[in-house]
Amino acid sequence: TIVEVLEKEMDKQQLLKGKKVLISAGPTREKIDPVRYFTNPSTGKMGYALARQAKALGAEVTLVSGPVNLATPAGVTRIDVTTAEEMHEQMLTHFPDQDLVIKSAAVADYRPRITYDHKMKKSPGDYVVEMERTRDILAELGERKEHQYLIGFAAETQEVERYGREKLDKKNLDGIVVNNVADEGAGFGHDTNASLWMTKSGQVEAFPLMSKDELAEGILRRAAKEMSGDVV
Amino acid sequence: TIVEVLEKEMDKQQLLKGKKVLISAGPTREKIDPVRYFTNPSTGKMGYALARQAKALGAEVTLVSGPVNLATPAGVTRIDVTTAEEMHEQMLTHFPDQDLVIKSAAVADYRPRITYDHKMKKSPGDYVVEMERTRDILAELGERKEHQYLIGFAAETQEVERYGREKLDKKNLDGIVVNNVADEGAGFGHDTNASLWMTKSGQVEAFPLMSKDELAEGILRRAAKEMSGDVV
Repeated sequence: TIVEVLEKEMDKQQLLKGKKVLISAGPTREKIDPVRYFTNPSTGKMGYALARQAKALGAEVTLVSGPVNLATPAGVTRIDVTTAEEMHEQMLTHFPDQDLVIKSAAVADYRPRITYDHKMKKSPGDYVVEMERTRDILAELGERKEHQYLIGFAAETQEVERYGREKLDKKNLDGIVVNNVADEGAGFGHDTNASLWMTKSGQVEAFPLMSKDELAEGILRRAAKEMSGDVV
Repeated sequence: TIVEVLEKEMDKQQLLKGKKVLISAGPTREKIDPVRYFTNPSTGKMGYALARQAKALGAEVTLVSGPVNLATPAGVTRIDVTTAEEMHEQMLTHFPDQDLVIKSAAVADYRPRITYDHKMKKSPGDYVVEMERTRDILAELGERKEHQYLIGFAAETQEVERYGREKLDKKNLDGIVVNNVADEGAGFGHDTNASLWMTKSGQVEAFPLMSKDELAEGILRRAAKEMSGDVV
């Protein structure tokens, strides 16, 4: 009945009601010069789906976004950044008063040691780019964690469960979503898009192939349940 | 009058009537591994505007496009590529029977010497990326040129006219569009988007600030005039 549908929808809006949710999304860009940079293929769609679904579940949502071609979900506060360093600053600044924090951004782990203000002229030979590590935002959030429920993502091309578990432990996360991103070009075909949900509390659940909005809702519902102290 | 407008529109459709036009657009991506690559900020908008306007001027248009978020202009044949090597192959293959060729793609001039099939694991220290030169598509087209009218683009942050003239001569082009792409972050503000049109035949013309579609039509009209042998 219509009443049941409405009641279900209202229940849905209660799940993260009054909760503050911080989500990072998209890639970062690390410049060599004004017209050359390192990045990754993140489109931001997963993070934007999480923001949209968290809002639908009643949360107050802040979305820290790298450069993407996506519209801001209605009712979500969006903060744009470009580099890993800017992403770091925004996530650390907003972290303390959040209830749930999801790092779905694909932050560059290396950046060129030197960024030139002017376009480098080509020269005949080869050259090397010296790269340095960026700061590990997720690990720093894990260290500073107090009351927050912290979720990370892992993109792996092999030994998906082992690397996911290692990252969950090492970064002091409460939950992790592990995606197999084996290159289409490498021909791994049907493994692509398989997601595994693992928690500190010991849950391991394989999500079947589904849309990013469905996956986002699934993750948020599971996190909300754990945050509320329900036995799962 | 309506008749005059229609006549003008019909004249416009005659300018490149029966001509084959090949345009490259967008960036290329040069992979380090499945989740890390080297690229540039090209959105492909200029190349797509050129394709759209060339079609409007009556041409048969082939568009070789790097990864962009743009719809294919109506009536244009689009070929998608990712790397500089793929761009090279498509441009060289289609070059021989074209009348007008415009290289507006921002092709990476360097690529990582090694591309890994699996995601590299992070290690504590820094590292260097060994880069090698990609092939210079525009220079190769300039060498093979017979009847084609060949136009290149240059993106410069300083000494715009000097570098533009050098590139025009060195690559055996018929025309070049030089953009000042000084980084917004560098605060050069009003210099950004200034375009200079220079030809082998000696024309030098500064285009005022205008939309990419207007700039595209301006370039194509000037090229069509030179191709038809009109004294300019």
